[in-house]
Amino acid sequence: MTPQDTPVALGSDHAGVALKATLRAALEEAGHPTFDMGTNGPESVDYPDFADAVANSLLDGTARFGVLVCGTGIGISIAANRHAGIRCALVHDATTARLSREHNDANVLALGARVIGPEVALDALRAFLNTPFGGGRHERRVRKLTPEWSLR
Amino acid sequence: MTPQDTPVALGSDHAGVALKATLRAALEEAGHPTFDMGTNGPESVDYPDFADAVANSLLDGTARFGVLVCGTGIGISIAANRHAGIRCALVHDATTARLSREHNDANVLALGARVIGPEVALDALRAFLNTPFGGGRHERRVRKLTPEWSLR
Repeated sequence: MTPQDTPVALGSDHAGVALKATLRAALEEAGHPTFDMGTNGPESVDYPDFADAVANSLLDGTARFGVLVCGTGIGISIAANRHAGIRCALVHDATTARLSREHNDANVLALGARVIGPEVALDALRAFLNTPFGGGRHERRVRKLTPEWSLR
Repeated sequence: MTPQDTPVALGSDHAGVALKATLRAALEEAGHPTFDMGTNGPESVDYPDFADAVANSLLDGTARFGVLVCGTGIGISIAANRHAGIRCALVHDATTARLSREHNDANVLALGARVIGPEVALDALRAFLNTPFGGGRHERRVRKLTPEWSLR
């Protein structure tokens, strides 16, 4: 993971606290500035609140990339993708993480803490941060992910 | 898969044509009415166009559930989730398909044809169609997936 100046924002619900801590430690170890928008305890919380917090930190320029974790990654990725400027990729391994950058110019990575283990998640995070967008034919498709009617 | 009166709408890009045909055949075999919104040829197309078509068929009441396929499922699920009334779950197996219904009341299933094989996809589709929403604490979270600002 090549360090970047602009921080990576992290968020999770209660199911993702431990995996989020593992990912945050790896980012810091690699020299990435991070900020953790919670949750950080075992109390049951609502995943959309943390998806919205991370999404807004990208949309206001505070963060460059986001990382979201819930039990399956499904709910938190749906919530993030309600924001027209967010392209949140739910991935299950390094291969899909790489393709989400190459093809979809994803700016948020979503992971399911009850579905994949920490080593797989770390490989996915590294692939996500180290892969550039492929451009070309993918540009037109990515533009269509932010249609005029979806602009907030 | 218990047959339903209201159809299942299917859509894919060129990478998903073969898997979509497999899923459609299984649905029809089980007595589900379906309609296939394309694409059905090898020509390169843009996945958001097919996500929008399937999303709109649910939003106008023509279809009850949707099934979307692209190479990874990532792009087509992001596009579907731009629509506030759609909860599109990108899944990789029957477990995540089941949880997407129980926890997220997902109404569209997204699959990656270059990531999972047809037998895994068929099991995911069966789990998706046969699992009811769990309600309870999940209700409040699902409501937060359609915030007022996202209403189209």
